[in-house]
Amino acid sequence: MTKVFNNPLDFREQMLDGFTAAYSRTIERIRDASGVMVRGGPTAGKVAVLIGGGGGHYPLFGGLVGKGFATGAVMGEIFTSPSAEQCYRCAKAVDGGAGIVFAYGNYSGDVMNFSMATMRLKLEGLDVRQVLVTDDVASSTDVDSRRGVAGDFFVFKVLGASAWRGDSLDTVEALGRRANAMTRSFGVAFGGCTVPGQGQPLFTVAPDQMELGLGLHGEPGVETSKLLTAQEVSGLLVDKLLSDIPRGAGTRAAVLVNGLGATKYEELFVLYSDMHRRLSAAGIETYKPIVGELATSLNMEGCSLTLMWLDKELQALVDAPAETPAWTNY
Amino acid sequence: MTKVFNNPLDFREQMLDGFTAAYSRTIERIRDASGVMVRGGPTAGKVAVLIGGGGGHYPLFGGLVGKGFATGAVMGEIFTSPSAEQCYRCAKAVDGGAGIVFAYGNYSGDVMNFSMATMRLKLEGLDVRQVLVTDDVASSTDVDSRRGVAGDFFVFKVLGASAWRGDSLDTVEALGRRANAMTRSFGVAFGGCTVPGQGQPLFTVAPDQMELGLGLHGEPGVETSKLLTAQEVSGLLVDKLLSDIPRGAGTRAAVLVNGLGATKYEELFVLYSDMHRRLSAAGIETYKPIVGELATSLNMEGCSLTLMWLDKELQALVDAPAETPAWTNY
Repeated sequence: MTKVFNNPLDFREQMLDGFTAAYSRTIERIRDASGVMVRGGPTAGKVAVLIGGGGGHYPLFGGLVGKGFATGAVMGEIFTSPSAEQCYRCAKAVDGGAGIVFAYGNYSGDVMNFSMATMRLKLEGLDVRQVLVTDDVASSTDVDSRRGVAGDFFVFKVLGASAWRGDSLDTVEALGRRANAMTRSFGVAFGGCTVPGQGQPLFTVAPDQMELGLGLHGEPGVETSKLLTAQEVSGLLVDKLLSDIPRGAGTRAAVLVNGLGATKYEELFVLYSDMHRRLSAAGIETYKPIVGELATSLNMEGCSLTLMWLDKELQALVDAPAETPAWTNY
Repeated sequence: MTKVFNNPLDFREQMLDGFTAAYSRTIERIRDASGVMVRGGPTAGKVAVLIGGGGGHYPLFGGLVGKGFATGAVMGEIFTSPSAEQCYRCAKAVDGGAGIVFAYGNYSGDVMNFSMATMRLKLEGLDVRQVLVTDDVASSTDVDSRRGVAGDFFVFKVLGASAWRGDSLDTVEALGRRANAMTRSFGVAFGGCTVPGQGQPLFTVAPDQMELGLGLHGEPGVETSKLLTAQEVSGLLVDKLLSDIPRGAGTRAAVLVNGLGATKYEELFVLYSDMHRRLSAAGIETYKPIVGELATSLNMEGCSLTLMWLDKELQALVDAPAETPAWTNY
């Protein structure tokens, strides 16, 4: 349950204020908007990547802004899309004159607001593209209708690295779409979370049960199950992703075992112990696995497995150096 | 509550197995011991820094092993000291022939087991030093009797950076002691955590209350309070540390706002928003603040503020490059 806040109405503003104060060495606040951008602002002549969505998912979204990653991030209230006006303002702030890519998980509120901002910016003559993340295999059998979950991390990394090395807008967009097409996630939840100032969790799960295929905001799962062992959960997640390998995938995949907030690192490692064995047995080469919290839902209990199937170019973009408040590699 | 496990008796082993499988690019398992070390083992002629303690505190301890940080880590069962035998085995594995520093938080079990291992290693002719972290101001008025909490992070970083650049054993030890002498932490808790396989949390806090000065394992706090606002918690933590500034401190301090597991990033940023204002108003220069989870207690609800008061040398060691599973800077 969320315990540290003042007036809940001030939560987003105070969160952004504290985040900016802590990481002023890397990022800065976008003036008059609920967003942040890379310190010093955009680089003239480079494509800008603006990521965004609701609050409560740190390090999504502001934590992934910085050199080699997103140019900026726009954030709404907890679990609520940023408004079209906020998307517009943040886009204007990060524009380096070479075009803008909006990148976000596929949720109706985000689609509406980013699309409205896109129309407005196009009327002003800016070239804006949209790359939606649709990695959650549980949410639909139609690949393009799926919602975005922890796969955001890999898609944003690819987009940011491509923009940062100076690729054209067409290239950045195409690589982002390729990254998304090659990314699949599946998750489970053991318990809900409580928004600041509210007394009741968004949803509840009985202590001896779990939800399969739950979304980042407590959207209904595909199935309720009795509580499984770590090995059973591992089998479920790995089997699901291996039954949904995208066309054109090779045998090497970047791996993210993501905790939603209150399912902790030690549990994720126990889970990965079994996942690693299963993936290896299936002939899959796991590339630089990441086990941690890269897409959270406040202190929700749950976790997911994400695979991004790699080719040489995607792998190079995963490897490209980046430095953000929540992610550094070199 | 811990939900992802198989047989609780296998938890530590499976956790270590999964951790090692995920981060084999950085670390490797120490054979026949419950520990890990930097990939490729120790560097001949360099001092080895072996950190350790109970499990359940990730990224303490294994997550901080790697280039520029700890040479190795030895871990016990959840919230339980590693045995003297395990400390001994891991020390032998990380020894590079230039001496060993054992570094750990000041808890009686750890002191006993690391000290027994020290005696045994000394009988074999190895030069072993011990640096205990004693940063928790709540635990005693006697500075040397205090227990170690999130300040571990800064003390280990200084030790690792010093050893990595090739300092002598005397110098590494002296710098580690100086880092500890300059580090202070104070924390609060809102709720307990549950060890894998147990039905009851280690301790409970009423929903409208909080514990001040609680330790990492649910050791009694100094006081129970009604639940405070973020600003009140901030005032409490900042005032406490400003009333306990170590002799010789300047005006610049490295800052860590640490979450214990289920008090999440957004809450910590709201907290830091107020802390930053208070520290600045007191004339303190905050140096590269870190807001995140660097010393957890499974999914315990709580957080702490750590300050390490910097001089030029400590600052250089904080800045020195490092690459571990949970921490990278360059």
